Amino acid sequence: MYRTHTNGQLRTEHIGQEVTLAGWVQKTRDKGFMVWVDLRDRYGITQLIFDAQRTEKGMMEQAQKLGREFVIQISGTVIERESKNPNIPTGDIEILVSKVTILNASLTPPFTIEDKTDGGEDLRMKYRYLDIRRNPVRENLIFRHKVSMAVRNYLSAEGFVDVETPYLIKSTPEGARDFVVPSRMNQGQFYALPQSPQTFKQLLMVGGLDKYFQIVKCFRDEDLRADRQPEFTQIDCEMAFIEQEDILTMFEGLTRHLLKEINGVEVGAFPRMQYDDAMRLYGNDKPDIRFGMKFGELNDIVKHKEFKVFNTAELVVGISVPGANSFTRKEIDKLIDWVKRPQVGALGMVYCRCNDDGSFKSSVDKFYDQEDFAKWAEATGASPGDLICVLSGETNKVRAQLSALRMELAERLGLRNASVFAPLWVVDFPLLELDEETGNYHAMHHPFTSPKPGQLELLDTHPADVKANAYDLVLNGNEIGGGSIRIHDKQTQAIMLRHLGFSEQEAKAQFGFLMDAFEYGAPPHGGIAFGLDRLVAILGGQETIRDFIAFPKNNSGRDVMIDAPAPLDQAQLTELNLKVDIQA
Amino acid sequence: MYRTHTNGQLRTEHIGQEVTLAGWVQKTRDKGFMVWVDLRDRYGITQLIFDAQRTEKGMMEQAQKLGREFVIQISGTVIERESKNPNIPTGDIEILVSKVTILNASLTPPFTIEDKTDGGEDLRMKYRYLDIRRNPVRENLIFRHKVSMAVRNYLSAEGFVDVETPYLIKSTPEGARDFVVPSRMNQGQFYALPQSPQTFKQLLMVGGLDKYFQIVKCFRDEDLRADRQPEFTQIDCEMAFIEQEDILTMFEGLTRHLLKEINGVEVGAFPRMQYDDAMRLYGNDKPDIRFGMKFGELNDIVKHKEFKVFNTAELVVGISVPGANSFTRKEIDKLIDWVKRPQVGALGMVYCRCNDDGSFKSSVDKFYDQEDFAKWAEATGASPGDLICVLSGETNKVRAQLSALRMELAERLGLRNASVFAPLWVVDFPLLELDEETGNYHAMHHPFTSPKPGQLELLDTHPADVKANAYDLVLNGNEIGGGSIRIHDKQTQAIMLRHLGFSEQEAKAQFGFLMDAFEYGAPPHGGIAFGLDRLVAILGGQETIRDFIAFPKNNSGRDVMIDAPAPLDQAQLTELNLKVDIQA
Repeated sequence: MYRTHTNGQLRTEHIGQEVTLAGWVQKTRDKGFMVWVDLRDRYGITQLIFDAQRTEKGMMEQAQKLGREFVIQISGTVIERESKNPNIPTGDIEILVSKVTILNASLTPPFTIEDKTDGGEDLRMKYRYLDIRRNPVRENLIFRHKVSMAVRNYLSAEGFVDVETPYLIKSTPEGARDFVVPSRMNQGQFYALPQSPQTFKQLLMVGGLDKYFQIVKCFRDEDLRADRQPEFTQIDCEMAFIEQEDILTMFEGLTRHLLKEINGVEVGAFPRMQYDDAMRLYGNDKPDIRFGMKFGELNDIVKHKEFKVFNTAELVVGISVPGANSFTRKEIDKLIDWVKRPQVGALGMVYCRCNDDGSFKSSVDKFYDQEDFAKWAEATGASPGDLICVLSGETNKVRAQLSALRMELAERLGLRNASVFAPLWVVDFPLLELDEETGNYHAMHHPFTSPKPGQLELLDTHPADVKANAYDLVLNGNEIGGGSIRIHDKQTQAIMLRHLGFSEQEAKAQFGFLMDAFEYGAPPHGGIAFGLDRLVAILGGQETIRDFIAFPKNNSGRDVMIDAPAPLDQAQLTELNLKVDIQA
Repeated sequence: MYRTHTNGQLRTEHIGQEVTLAGWVQKTRDKGFMVWVDLRDRYGITQLIFDAQRTEKGMMEQAQKLGREFVIQISGTVIERESKNPNIPTGDIEILVSKVTILNASLTPPFTIEDKTDGGEDLRMKYRYLDIRRNPVRENLIFRHKVSMAVRNYLSAEGFVDVETPYLIKSTPEGARDFVVPSRMNQGQFYALPQSPQTFKQLLMVGGLDKYFQIVKCFRDEDLRADRQPEFTQIDCEMAFIEQEDILTMFEGLTRHLLKEINGVEVGAFPRMQYDDAMRLYGNDKPDIRFGMKFGELNDIVKHKEFKVFNTAELVVGISVPGANSFTRKEIDKLIDWVKRPQVGALGMVYCRCNDDGSFKSSVDKFYDQEDFAKWAEATGASPGDLICVLSGETNKVRAQLSALRMELAERLGLRNASVFAPLWVVDFPLLELDEETGNYHAMHHPFTSPKPGQLELLDTHPADVKANAYDLVLNGNEIGGGSIRIHDKQTQAIMLRHLGFSEQEAKAQFGFLMDAFEYGAPPHGGIAFGLDRLVAILGGQETIRDFIAFPKNNSGRDVMIDAPAPLDQAQLTELNLKVDIQA
């Protein structure tokens, strides 16, 4: 036995006891006649004391040589501390050491193992096993575990069955790129890793399993944007004999339970917003509703004057920034520069100061009068002391630009409070989305999402207008879950795939098994999937998912710790009947 | 809302209530003036009744047309059944239907959806979604879920943290073959799918996480034997600051908890057996100790006569088969044929009948006398009425052969009682195993297993004699878990890898990150992994793991339902810089 107690356990009631502890040397203080060592493990820190009067000389010297991150085992007596440390739970006691064993030495770590480390991201990733020793990283991993357990226990109690679906499945060129796995036993053939267990969970519903969940790794070979991972974790759920309302109720319950259990926060009924309204009011299908700054569309009240920029714009839209009339001219100019950055892409920004005396001062004073501005203020909900920011242009673009500005300003004004939780259902998503590059429509959610009743006919004539039985759960401006009621009959699925550009043969080759299944008594069903990485980060009051993943990959999809991916042996390639053939 | 109740829910106390149910038509009985329909869902069966007196004519006709596996929704009144069915929980009531909606029709299923189906394995796998509708398959999946949840909750309560380790890692040619995943972003390079999260869990220990578990998919590209799957699930666990005893205690606790919680069986302290004893007494490192038939080695008592077969054999060893003196000569001849099958490979079998009068009758009467046979009986523990079966030959081979015979006879004699649970720790495994083909030694457990204290030196002179801190948990003759105390210092790990034939460069390229980690204060650690598929099957009183996997693959590694693996598009191959190059 390496220890009788952990380093977070001992209190004054243990004084006088002989104990054995083990852990890492956090730091030592050597006063010559006295040496203190902070001994650390997952559970806390215990102070060890060696002193010239009470400690045998050899051991005193041993203590003086202990380096940071040495792994030691000690025995000794719990004694009361002379100067207590109220900041740690074990701060009232220390251990007068009678025996030390060095279990393992340590080189000097490449960065300090402290809450605020001197190590940069790259170094910490290369030595992730040392990074995990730091409290914030370790606590994030433990936090993730707690969330997973809470999810599993809640869903299990609600009658959901955790079913493991296969990881070696079939590639479907539609949608994002698959990672593929060559098969040695089936020459020239490949498995694919699942982008989600979508078709399998639907087959479980056809199989009568009724309520399914799984916390499962999914894979997407995408060009990685910041904070995307090639492998990510989903809470994947499906129910049969349900309507959209049943799903929303069930998973509102789960989310409310998590907020209560994990964050101690009680949240009322989740508001619901139509997709069209979310886009109109927030320029975004995942609005952060912790704060206002709703969009005010100004087309009707700005197009009667000679200001050509507005007159030729498809959409003129503004937000009122609370208290921002205090911004200096220089600050506003910087804001204009910010919206003109290529990442945002606006051509410019019109603003209007709402003065405390009720008057207005705008960058377009020569085109508009005070009466006009009063209407702007009304449309954007601006009060004296606020600043109205107005963008104009093509509807989709200008909404995205103003949404970016809204989020940026909220961030700067401290309105995105991590301890406030504002969930929201966004419903009635469009079924299809136009790919601007190819001019083709593709499924906004996925090809298995059902259109709203009676709208199937619109697919031929007004494809963009067809609404889906699809919904997203948004929390603090992040999509944490999304799902839909599925198609459950072969004919509708065939029509859908045809509209997505699948030939009959392609549809059969890729989804034949699912459409066949629909012919043998498929029940109505639907589901939802949550992104666990993001959910955990948001519940943890943070936004970087990498901080909640034990061994994340970098933006090139590399694990810099184990140095993967890596070239294969020629023998392995030969056995797989593969040749690497790099195009210049 | 599709239903007010499930089909397993209604009882006499619901009589008179209006209810709505949904589910599948299990079967219909049509008496012309009366139609009964058994409506099935995950939760049970409810009988529906339509009768000419009380049911409107159109609906009566509709009921008569309902086919097997149609999905319907009905509303009606709960009434008392005239002839009750005590075999099902809802057998006291039926529903007088007032409304029927066909939610989906069904073709005639390719096999019957009943506990005993007429569908063969291949057909059931192709239509697995229909197979899952059958009670035994569905109940197995729900059973698996219960076991997983019990494992998670137990380990979580014991302070273990569920940490997700990566699936896209690095290929290590040592051991079984990896499945690999070409990287598009890193040209010419590959990830590998984990055969187990071994190195990652060790790094979590170096990272101070102390107690880790994960229920995780693992992958091995092996030529599949019966009932092996290319992807399988492990309960993977690791602890730091522990000795072997701590691990055995902890996971004996888990196993005892599962037997209690899942099977309602109380089991005492698990016996422990040294690997050498297991091989000597059962010819097997995973002995089924639910029954006796221990091996009796006979070398010392058979080699004094002229029987050349025994005199030239390395090992002569027998078992006493209880009550088997009743076997006819023909039955014994069949048994001899059985051990001579190529799958077993014995050259023959000597037997000795133990007659009720205390005399013996043997197939080698001309070489041995009654006094000799009395010694055989003593060595094998045979009593009057038993049959002694003796095999001889090369030690390793003859042990395996006799072990196979022992298990076969136990099966035939009904000694392998699925409701009896006999767990056993097998300890002190050899560190290395000789590969008879190459003459090289490889790690019996894996290259990270530590040798017993003080035995490292033997590696050079007596490699086969070195014992490891390795242990297996055996349940009813199946290895359900195995683990070891790991090496935690760089130098020992380097020596170990050198003995396994790794050059210094190879060791560095493949395990450099782990050996580096050992230089920064690695704590003593060890762990265990359970095969969840097999554990669940055994707890469920069965031995075929495929029956506990939702979507298993066949013996060629194919998913016959989705028809995977499959050829890739040329565009996908090009993007991955790969060419398929099949050698004739």
